Amino acid sequence: MQVFSEDIIAALATPPGEGAISVIRLSGNGCAEIADKIFAGRVLLSDAAANTIHYGKILDRNNKTIDDVLVSIFREPHSYTGEDSVEISVHGNPLIVEKILAELVSAGARLAEPGEFTKRAFLNGRIDLAQAEAVAEIISARTEASLRGARNQLNGALSKKVNSLRESLIDILSLEELELDFAEEDLEFIPDEKIVSKLNSVISDIDALLETYDFGRIIRDGINVAIVGKPNVGKSSLLNYLLKESRAIVSETPGTTRDVIREEIKIDGYLFRLFDTAGIRETADDIEKEGVLRSREAIEQSDFVIFLNDSQLGFDKDVYESLLEIKEKDKIIIVSNKIDLVERSPFLADVNISAKTGKGIKELFQTMKSRAIDSKSYTEKTAIVSNIRHFNALKNSKEALESAKKTISKGFSQEFVALDIRASLEALNEIIGIVTTDDMLNNIFDKFCIGK
Amino acid sequence: MQVFSEDIIAALATPPGEGAISVIRLSGNGCAEIADKIFAGRVLLSDAAANTIHYGKILDRNNKTIDDVLVSIFREPHSYTGEDSVEISVHGNPLIVEKILAELVSAGARLAEPGEFTKRAFLNGRIDLAQAEAVAEIISARTEASLRGARNQLNGALSKKVNSLRESLIDILSLEELELDFAEEDLEFIPDEKIVSKLNSVISDIDALLETYDFGRIIRDGINVAIVGKPNVGKSSLLNYLLKESRAIVSETPGTTRDVIREEIKIDGYLFRLFDTAGIRETADDIEKEGVLRSREAIEQSDFVIFLNDSQLGFDKDVYESLLEIKEKDKIIIVSNKIDLVERSPFLADVNISAKTGKGIKELFQTMKSRAIDSKSYTEKTAIVSNIRHFNALKNSKEALESAKKTISKGFSQEFVALDIRASLEALNEIIGIVTTDDMLNNIFDKFCIGK
Repeated sequence: MQVFSEDIIAALATPPGEGAISVIRLSGNGCAEIADKIFAGRVLLSDAAANTIHYGKILDRNNKTIDDVLVSIFREPHSYTGEDSVEISVHGNPLIVEKILAELVSAGARLAEPGEFTKRAFLNGRIDLAQAEAVAEIISARTEASLRGARNQLNGALSKKVNSLRESLIDILSLEELELDFAEEDLEFIPDEKIVSKLNSVISDIDALLETYDFGRIIRDGINVAIVGKPNVGKSSLLNYLLKESRAIVSETPGTTRDVIREEIKIDGYLFRLFDTAGIRETADDIEKEGVLRSREAIEQSDFVIFLNDSQLGFDKDVYESLLEIKEKDKIIIVSNKIDLVERSPFLADVNISAKTGKGIKELFQTMKSRAIDSKSYTEKTAIVSNIRHFNALKNSKEALESAKKTISKGFSQEFVALDIRASLEALNEIIGIVTTDDMLNNIFDKFCIGK
Repeated sequence: MQVFSEDIIAALATPPGEGAISVIRLSGNGCAEIADKIFAGRVLLSDAAANTIHYGKILDRNNKTIDDVLVSIFREPHSYTGEDSVEISVHGNPLIVEKILAELVSAGARLAEPGEFTKRAFLNGRIDLAQAEAVAEIISARTEASLRGARNQLNGALSKKVNSLRESLIDILSLEELELDFAEEDLEFIPDEKIVSKLNSVISDIDALLETYDFGRIIRDGINVAIVGKPNVGKSSLLNYLLKESRAIVSETPGTTRDVIREEIKIDGYLFRLFDTAGIRETADDIEKEGVLRSREAIEQSDFVIFLNDSQLGFDKDVYESLLEIKEKDKIIIVSNKIDLVERSPFLADVNISAKTGKGIKELFQTMKSRAIDSKSYTEKTAIVSNIRHFNALKNSKEALESAKKTISKGFSQEFVALDIRASLEALNEIIGIVTTDDMLNNIFDKFCIGK
């Protein structure tokens, strides 16, 4: 399906800025001919064999050298996009890139839109839609965990699972339709219970996928942790120690959320977003009230809470009770801080630490990690849902199957059951992009960077 | 001269950050074997032909895929460095780059130092030292003019000229030495005047090169322009209009130089650095005095001055006289501003403008350009000196030749003349790096980016 073959796109493929080299990418059948118009080398690029590299010069319209370059030649279908493609490796200067792109455009190419190379890879059948989405995630992944998740999706773990669900549905549909063909003869080929049991099996597979979303979201977006405790129990010290121990990758001072300080740390390849809250106790003061509201919001949105106590002063029962109004018990890690100043914690905490000496911080890391990721283990091959679009499609698919079951139980004709199953199938098709709309594709690829 | 052949270097070659792709570069004989240790594809990279591209996966030490990659193979001497080289094109994510570099290091490569690839290209005789320096300038060039200048140097315009000077000196030296061989026979082979005339010819060639430095410096670093005038003559309006008209590439609000606002604009590919000065009149007030001193400094260091007058109020004779104490007459462009508010300028200005309507701004651009670049024309082939290191080496070379002439005029023995000429030759050698020291090379390549 060479949908774009006459339309040749060009873009900078490497990050913008100065470097040793930058790479300009061209795709579309005939792109080597376009490159030939501005290239002077020993061979014609349009005659060059696939997967070969050629040295030469890029000339401007006045025949002056813009740069010495290396040009790589790719032939359809063995290229990223599935079309003929060319990569021009130039000196890494934005001015050179700009000049060469201008020459390519005047030679007949046009500047690519965001994600257009990957969109072509999808439209040309090189990858499915879920894999195309994984490409953007691979590029923007900031932790090992999110990178692994995106790779898993690019490798097709999710696509394979979705395809096997589709096959099951298509099987059921064909049984239903077979039955329809012989409906007049009033023979029942498959008992309803058999169909329902088959539907239940698919539903339970979808449920298993939906369940991975919590984990998928966490590896993709990170884990939100609220740090809660009375003033002076050591919230800031803990935050500083955590930042020092793990390599901080982003550090934000109070911004729009005036009363909540946010910092990001990595533990074992997972991203934790730490919110240092002002406190959750009620207050009369208007300004402080706003702070309290924001803290409350941070706690509500957190995946779990680190509840910090001063081991010298004992357990802050009142704060704990307020916390329990917002958060489940198992989402609260009770921490006894300043353990270096007492002989033993006067209360039973999940972890005893000293944010000053660092004692117990490793245990805290382990506790944070196990609370976030729980005990489920996922291998490289496990299908994981990390994208809200996929999650919603799966939910829709499941709902249509539940509706099919109802239709059966109400004794409606197979035609109606088949309608429900087809709706379910279509929801699955959306994930891997078997049928797409322009809007849907624009939504997905607009978020890509240009050149990908 | 494969000086480094056993030492394999690796670095990110593309700009840092997110993009569709990033390229990791390896160089050193045996680098394909190193790449093979972490690469899984259809062929062994070490068996692959020169200038071919291979798809595969990079695996970590646990055999898990880090990324899908394309690997380009280069064989000595047909590579940038002149050694066997490998380029790995990966998804443009800094985390992926970091992980692959770590695997390469554990497979036996080491991280490259700044400029080390280009240093190897020089040490392996692919390019001379002046050309190696041009590579860094090509990457950092911010204007068309500076890019052209750097290209000119990379193409060897300067190197060729220096080599022809060297040949002339070697010719003279061989004549001198021939004479020395027969010195006992007391025959004079070449009359002193002939030698002096040959030396003068070289000196005049060096002078011509030294003269290009003003132009070379300007195309490389840009042109400093001080905007001077009494308060309210329209300095800020002019600055704003210039910025709007030409595409501003950097804009700085007052920083360390509290009283001088600096902005950069491009005109026809040349970089102009505009300094809006506070004024140059004497003042009693201490703080204003400091401002005046800074303005004076900006004016002294400028290539020329735009002296702005309000056409409604007439020519500011007192300011002009103060200016003439600092700057030559032909380095001052007299401008009559607010020409839209009067019928005609009450005094003879170089350019009449309205910073409000834009009238005359094009003429001002042309005047600025012609004052900066004067009437000299340089073609793509002209050798231009833009580097202070080259400029100083040429000065030293010339001085040694002047000294040779004195030695001759004093009637000293040819041996002493030859010593001077050899000193001159060595200064030229430094430019293209015929003899180098570690310090000299470190000085040059430390300024490069890593990966180049």
